[in-house]
Amino acid sequence: MLVVMERGATPEQVLGVVRRIEELGYEARPLVGRGRTAVAVLGNQGSVDAARFVDLPGVRDLIHITEPYRQVSRDWQPESTLVRLPGGVVVGGDDVVVMAGPCSVESERQIVETARLVRDAGATVLRGGAFKPRTSPYSFQGVGEQGLAWLVRAREETGLPVVTEVMDTESVELVARHADVLQVGARSMQNFPLLKRVGRAGKPVLLKRGYAATLTELLLAAEYILAEGNDQVILCERGVRGFDAATRFILDLAAIPLVHRLSHLPIVADPSHGTGLRGQVLPMARAAVAAGADGLLVEVHPTPERALSDGVQTISTEEFGDLMRQCRGIAEVMGRRMAEPAEVA
Amino acid sequence: MLVVMERGATPEQVLGVVRRIEELGYEARPLVGRGRTAVAVLGNQGSVDAARFVDLPGVRDLIHITEPYRQVSRDWQPESTLVRLPGGVVVGGDDVVVMAGPCSVESERQIVETARLVRDAGATVLRGGAFKPRTSPYSFQGVGEQGLAWLVRAREETGLPVVTEVMDTESVELVARHADVLQVGARSMQNFPLLKRVGRAGKPVLLKRGYAATLTELLLAAEYILAEGNDQVILCERGVRGFDAATRFILDLAAIPLVHRLSHLPIVADPSHGTGLRGQVLPMARAAVAAGADGLLVEVHPTPERALSDGVQTISTEEFGDLMRQCRGIAEVMGRRMAEPAEVA
Amino acid sequence: MLVVMERGATPEQVLGVVRRIEELGYEARPLVGRGRTAVAVLGNQGSVDAARFVDLPGVRDLIHITEPYRQVSRDWQPESTLVRLPGGVVVGGDDVVVMAGPCSVESERQIVETARLVRDAGATVLRGGAFKPRTSPYSFQGVGEQGLAWLVRAREETGLPVVTEVMDTESVELVARHADVLQVGARSMQNFPLLKRVGRAGKPVLLKRGYAATLTELLLAAEYILAEGNDQVILCERGVRGFDAATRFILDLAAIPLVHRLSHLPIVADPSHGTGLRGQVLPMARAAVAAGADGLLVEVHPTPERALSDGVQTISTEEFGDLMRQCRGIAEVMGRRMAEPAEVA
Amino acid sequence: MLVVMERGATPEQVLGVVRRIEELGYEARPLVGRGRTAVAVLGNQGSVDAARFVDLPGVRDLIHITEPYRQVSRDWQPESTLVRLPGGVVVGGDDVVVMAGPCSVESERQIVETARLVRDAGATVLRGGAFKPRTSPYSFQGVGEQGLAWLVRAREETGLPVVTEVMDTESVELVARHADVLQVGARSMQNFPLLKRVGRAGKPVLLKRGYAATLTELLLAAEYILAEGNDQVILCERGVRGFDAATRFILDLAAIPLVHRLSHLPIVADPSHGTGLRGQVLPMARAAVAAGADGLLVEVHPTPERALSDGVQTISTEEFGDLMRQCRGIAEVMGRRMAEPAEVA
Repeated sequence: MLVVMERGATPEQVLGVVRRIEELGYEARPLVGRGRTAVAVLGNQGSVDAARFVDLPGVRDLIHITEPYRQVSRDWQPESTLVRLPGGVVVGGDDVVVMAGPCSVESERQIVETARLVRDAGATVLRGGAFKPRTSPYSFQGVGEQGLAWLVRAREETGLPVVTEVMDTESVELVARHADVLQVGARSMQNFPLLKRVGRAGKPVLLKRGYAATLTELLLAAEYILAEGNDQVILCERGVRGFDAATRFILDLAAIPLVHRLSHLPIVADPSHGTGLRGQVLPMARAAVAAGADGLLVEVHPTPERALSDGVQTISTEEFGDLMRQCRGIAEVMGRRMAEPAEVA
Repeated sequence: MLVVMERGATPEQVLGVVRRIEELGYEARPLVGRGRTAVAVLGNQGSVDAARFVDLPGVRDLIHITEPYRQVSRDWQPESTLVRLPGGVVVGGDDVVVMAGPCSVESERQIVETARLVRDAGATVLRGGAFKPRTSPYSFQGVGEQGLAWLVRAREETGLPVVTEVMDTESVELVARHADVLQVGARSMQNFPLLKRVGRAGKPVLLKRGYAATLTELLLAAEYILAEGNDQVILCERGVRGFDAATRFILDLAAIPLVHRLSHLPIVADPSHGTGLRGQVLPMARAAVAAGADGLLVEVHPTPERALSDGVQTISTEEFGDLMRQCRGIAEVMGRRMAEPAEVA
Repeated sequence: MLVVMERGATPEQVLGVVRRIEELGYEARPLVGRGRTAVAVLGNQGSVDAARFVDLPGVRDLIHITEPYRQVSRDWQPESTLVRLPGGVVVGGDDVVVMAGPCSVESERQIVETARLVRDAGATVLRGGAFKPRTSPYSFQGVGEQGLAWLVRAREETGLPVVTEVMDTESVELVARHADVLQVGARSMQNFPLLKRVGRAGKPVLLKRGYAATLTELLLAAEYILAEGNDQVILCERGVRGFDAATRFILDLAAIPLVHRLSHLPIVADPSHGTGLRGQVLPMARAAVAAGADGLLVEVHPTPERALSDGVQTISTEEFGDLMRQCRGIAEVMGRRMAEPAEVA
Repeated sequence: MLVVMERGATPEQVLGVVRRIEELGYEARPLVGRGRTAVAVLGNQGSVDAARFVDLPGVRDLIHITEPYRQVSRDWQPESTLVRLPGGVVVGGDDVVVMAGPCSVESERQIVETARLVRDAGATVLRGGAFKPRTSPYSFQGVGEQGLAWLVRAREETGLPVVTEVMDTESVELVARHADVLQVGARSMQNFPLLKRVGRAGKPVLLKRGYAATLTELLLAAEYILAEGNDQVILCERGVRGFDAATRFILDLAAIPLVHRLSHLPIVADPSHGTGLRGQVLPMARAAVAAGADGLLVEVHPTPERALSDGVQTISTEEFGDLMRQCRGIAEVMGRRMAEPAEVA
């Protein structure tokens, strides 16, 4: 940490900061510039508590130099983490992995049929929500536990591993018994008890960025999971909140190369939630692959206009076929390829 | 809902929309303007699913006219809700209620001493966190269950009712056995399973606005609690995320008169989290009372520079005394008064 | 416009609204829903002034249905506008047009050399600032008028048309005498006197989106130019302001397909300002082309670390070569091609 | 500046940074921490160009320690600047100065009548726009030069000094001949040619914060004016852009105590533009005074529903009387008083 002094700080004030640093057991190193003086804090293991300095006379500002996360950092582990799903699907390597399916699981027939259709078009993971976080208490809240069994049925029929959301600590074990990947939604990104619990559940985790979360906060949320001993974490950019009502969210694609620089964890993009509009899903899926995303999360429904939730941003299976074709071309330009669905056992 | 047509929409396209509305069992009312045509949907009980219209040829936009919340609305209940706490404290009436205390409960001695000091300065409710949501897994996570017993001890000594945060569904019953008000933090505002559970816990709820939540989303989160039969909900403005790193958050004080217009629920302000800086707490506390806040939530510690969390934004008990004096004057200008602490039983 | 009544509005209040509408010479059409009543305003030519209704008893809200822009709209002109630059360069057709060059014109040698290098790598337009808007008065403010002559020299040497910024009304004629495209910067997007003046200058305009401008505001700014009789306008997405200090700006690529739907004007992307970091320029350039951008605006300098401004986000000519190669592949997948530099006359 | 190295940076890489610092004529001071090494740059007069370091191997980040502004800083001048207007009005001292009037000057009669009414209610400065920046080219653009003469007439009748907006460099002299304070609007805050010109016009300047400008950017914009030799600058908080369509802007009142700490310049608040809604103007005016604002800028019209612009956020003269009464009480609690209108000469 760097303690920056006011421009007219007296030598006594600088000495006061030096003493406080030494009281805390650290080493103080004053830096006398022309404009102002700063005092570096050295020898600290973790982060230094800014509150110990904020009220000392002559102190203007405190600057943290070290990021607060550790195990998720590329500093900590230079090589990229590969997240391994059943059926040989690997996220974070050369393949671009597409996870597709309806917003909500609605019936056994709906989810099995959709699974077949997205698999035939090239998806390698099936997505679908049994428990649904909804802004209004009067909206459809998901079919619940029954939906998990239907997702298992769809996996048996198609061989596609299943990703589905878990919303509270009490359901983690239940969902982990059925799903191949536990999804932590954007609204739960800082539900710390939930992060700890999924960190101990023994399954890969798909962690969505909160829609007003900084990248540091996203990486610290992932750090909660790694701190429990689970490094099989896939990050997901799904749009951040902006000021223009014309677009519900802004898909922050620059987060993809930035996360790749800061962390060894893979990151995928969700162009469905990230745009909120069917007509934007295809162009933004292409853009995400071009930006270097390790995969896509896409809402697909055989008849989007009859979907029980999120129909406005859900594409049809025909549109999904186009999406796969276009993204395949882009992946090739990038020297990558779209992951292939596994053979059914 | 209003289905707005493209400017060049044909009569056949307008008819297609009319038919779709009638298929869904509603009444269609075309509005032919000079610029463009729109079709109003009448006769619907709840909200109409936009997805049923978004793909019809010639449709440009869908405009919702009715807000999605009901029981929290002033339309539903014109008179203001009074939230009644033990010891005769009432939030939402003429009194401005100040809830003060440390960010974290650290020890029995610390919380009892702080409770006495804030009570002597004029606080009427004690705040303090036993379970702490922290951005980093390596930060102090709160003393946990033991802290609840210490809060009860502080209440016995001072007569101040206690507000403390509950972070997951599994802890709701435990916290409800000890606390007088259950706090749902900003990061949990859309933790819907938690909202449902606190709605059934039989205690008043302090619901903090998420730092990127719209007022509609805040009111819908409160609606989750009212839908469970509990109308004793206090809303709390605690700052929203902005683009300027100089201020961690922007305290959105205009939310206070707006919420008073839209809803019958009381709303308080948290100038400590809402600014993140000790030097801003006093001016923004004054401003919140001047804007019409029904109360304040303030972080106070006898020695802020030794606080285990949030020291940078915590004020001392001396500063808190100043805050109370200044806010008392402003409340009088507003025709209100600061609530008085109850006599110890 | 739609005047939405309070839920408990009386028939007299609805009648009051009807009368006010009729007084203003429009037609009123009441819509009685189960939840609430609204009154549509019909027969108005332009926009209706909301202030005439906001204080009538029982009125809750006013909803505008028609967008405020006209000539820039695809409703007004369904076919895409082609912006034609000297040398046969066309923006808005099948070709993706790359405009490259240094942030600032620094010397005749620097700009002529850079022009040659970017031309050899495939750029078709030369960018470079003679007048520079700088946040601090103590930063390098550009070489001024001299720079315009050097840009002309570079055009003579390479055949590349030149785009350069104009910052105030007094300089419009001067800049228009030298440049092929007049750039209006993000900070000037709502400098309305400047927009009117460039609209009359007889040259194509590159209009950059303000970094907190909605798409409606961007299109209305363009409307100022079209209203002066000049439809040769190229829009430019250059990043909007977000809440995360890790990324200076968020490049809002979804604006590209959205603008294409709303307007007939071409839109290009600026990955240099849009990310602010050299390492993000390549991935975001690829993503912009994949999202459908009609072109790119890229800061290139032979030795970025010696650039007099914006060095942190400027790429080298080698990196620019890579960018062109990668974007060429992506354009092909999209069924487009990168524009070819014209032959030197 | 601090050059922060990657965690695994080699001694050679650190040495490379030291050499580059010394090449630039500065002094290098390495700081070896446990987590990582940083190198401080000392001896520099102004700011160091980050681009010289960003590409050196092993460099992770560059941290600026000194703010970029100088003359506006409290470091530079500890005592508060008093801005003196004709008639003895002083902004920045003990008095809270209220500037009131219509959004637009519409006619001689309207502006003279409004001036009398706001003067009788206690305003000490008259505001009113002759040149109006409007988002749409089809909205009323102001009466122009004629309006300046009418403002002068209103000043002659009431003795109130006049503040009015200047939109481009060409009009600065004209406006300065008539007005007592030159207003630079939010959209012009970074119109640098305009800032330079008003800095030389010999009149006090009211500089409004851009609606996505950081406080550093606001202070740097003011620095442009001071750098021309004019320190008579009044800053104005007028709301920043947020993510919630329910409130057009968020009035960032914490900016007031923050600016008072960072700068010696006075700052006033504009609750009319800062909220955009008539019903919010009174509570936010009170809150601004309670937060420590040196004055208010308020839109008042005898018949707001007939105002040619901004009617939705304009209050009536009756409401303005209430505002003055309430703010007077709050100012007294703060140990300040509302400025009194001067006697007519």
